[in-house]
Amino acid sequence: MKAAYQKEGLLIVVSGPSGVGKGTVCSALRKRMPELTYSVSATTRAPREGEKEGVNYFFKTVPEFKKMIENDELIEWAQYVGNYYGTPRRFVEETLKEGKDILLEIEVQGALQVKQRFPDGIFVFLLPPTMEELKKRILYRGTETEESLASRLGVAEDEFKHIHHYDYVVINDVVEQACERIQAIITAEHCRKDRLILSD
Amino acid sequence: MKAAYQKEGLLIVVSGPSGVGKGTVCSALRKRMPELTYSVSATTRAPREGEKEGVNYFFKTVPEFKKMIENDELIEWAQYVGNYYGTPRRFVEETLKEGKDILLEIEVQGALQVKQRFPDGIFVFLLPPTMEELKKRILYRGTETEESLASRLGVAEDEFKHIHHYDYVVINDVVEQACERIQAIITAEHCRKDRLILSD
Repeated sequence: MKAAYQKEGLLIVVSGPSGVGKGTVCSALRKRMPELTYSVSATTRAPREGEKEGVNYFFKTVPEFKKMIENDELIEWAQYVGNYYGTPRRFVEETLKEGKDILLEIEVQGALQVKQRFPDGIFVFLLPPTMEELKKRILYRGTETEESLASRLGVAEDEFKHIHHYDYVVINDVVEQACERIQAIITAEHCRKDRLILSD
Repeated sequence: MKAAYQKEGLLIVVSGPSGVGKGTVCSALRKRMPELTYSVSATTRAPREGEKEGVNYFFKTVPEFKKMIENDELIEWAQYVGNYYGTPRRFVEETLKEGKDILLEIEVQGALQVKQRFPDGIFVFLLPPTMEELKKRILYRGTETEESLASRLGVAEDEFKHIHHYDYVVINDVVEQACERIQAIITAEHCRKDRLILSD
C-alpha cells in the first residue's frame, strides 16, 4: 500500500465585490505562495506603461477577442467600460494538467461562469467585514462620484446574493489574515479524502 | 450588513491505525495550536507516574466507568488490554458551546462512534506514507512479537477500509508537515460558507 495525493492541480477562484480588496489580497498571496500559478487575463484595453504581454495581460484587438469568444477559448469573459476582459481556457487547462494549482482573481459574474465549466473548482468569496468598510474602501480610491458609489454598493449587495454558489467565505479584515485563510483553504483542499490515491 | 464566522466551536477528530503516529502529531499540534482544546479521556487503567487527574485522564473505577456508559455520558468508548477508555460527552459539548474548537485523538472504531453522534465533526484520517513505513514504526517501539505485529498490520488494513467515512486524509510523512495540514484544515473549515453569519 502506498498513499499519495492526486497529481492534478486545483483551480482556485478568488472573487467578490469591487472594492473588497481582491487585487491587494492576491498580490500578497503571490508573495506568500510563489508556487501558485496565476491566470493571466486577455483584454482589449491598451497596455499601460510597464505592462507586459503574457505577464499582466494577453493584449488583443477587438476582432481577436471576439474570435476567442466564438472559438470557446475563454472560460469567462465580460465587458467593462468599453473593454473586453476574459480568462483564456488553454493556459488554465495546461497548468492543471501539469499538476500545478492555478488562481483566478475575477468578478462575481465571471466566477459564476467558471463554476459552470469547472464545478470541481474551489470558489472563495472575499467579503468586507461590513458594508460601511466596503464604502470606505471604494471612497478611498477617490475615483467615485456620489452616484457611482451608490451604484457600486448596489451591485455589491446583489453580488452577496450569490455567496451560496461558493465553497468558502474569507472575510478581508486584515490582508495578511485573509491570505493565511486562502492558503489554508488550498492546503486543506489537497487533503480532502476524494483527492487521495491509494495504490498497491 | 455585517459578516462574521459562526461562534460555535468545531469538533476535530484525528484518528488512524495504531502506529501511525497520532500521539506524536497531536503533541506537536498542541505546541503549535495552544488555543485548541484537547479532549481528556476517561479510563479505568491505573495512573502512571506523573499523570494527573483531569489533565492526562479522568481516572475511574470499573463500576464508575460502566455507570458512565449506562448514563450515555461517553460519546465513544472501547476496551483495550483489559482497561476501558472513553470520551466524556460533557466536556466536549461544553467546550463547543463556549465557541472553542476541541480535538479528539482516538482509534478508528471510536471515531466511527463519534461520527454517528456528531455528523458535523471534522474527521481526519492519519495515514502512513506506506505499509512498510507503518511496519517500521510499530517495530521501532520494540514491544511487538512477530505475531502481534502481523495482527496489528491486519487491523490497520481493515481500518483503511473506513477512510471513506472521513473528510480529510493527512499523510504523516513528516510530523511538522502533518501538523501544518491539520492546522490548515481547521482554519479552512472555519471559512466554509455554511459557517458564515450575515446580519444587518
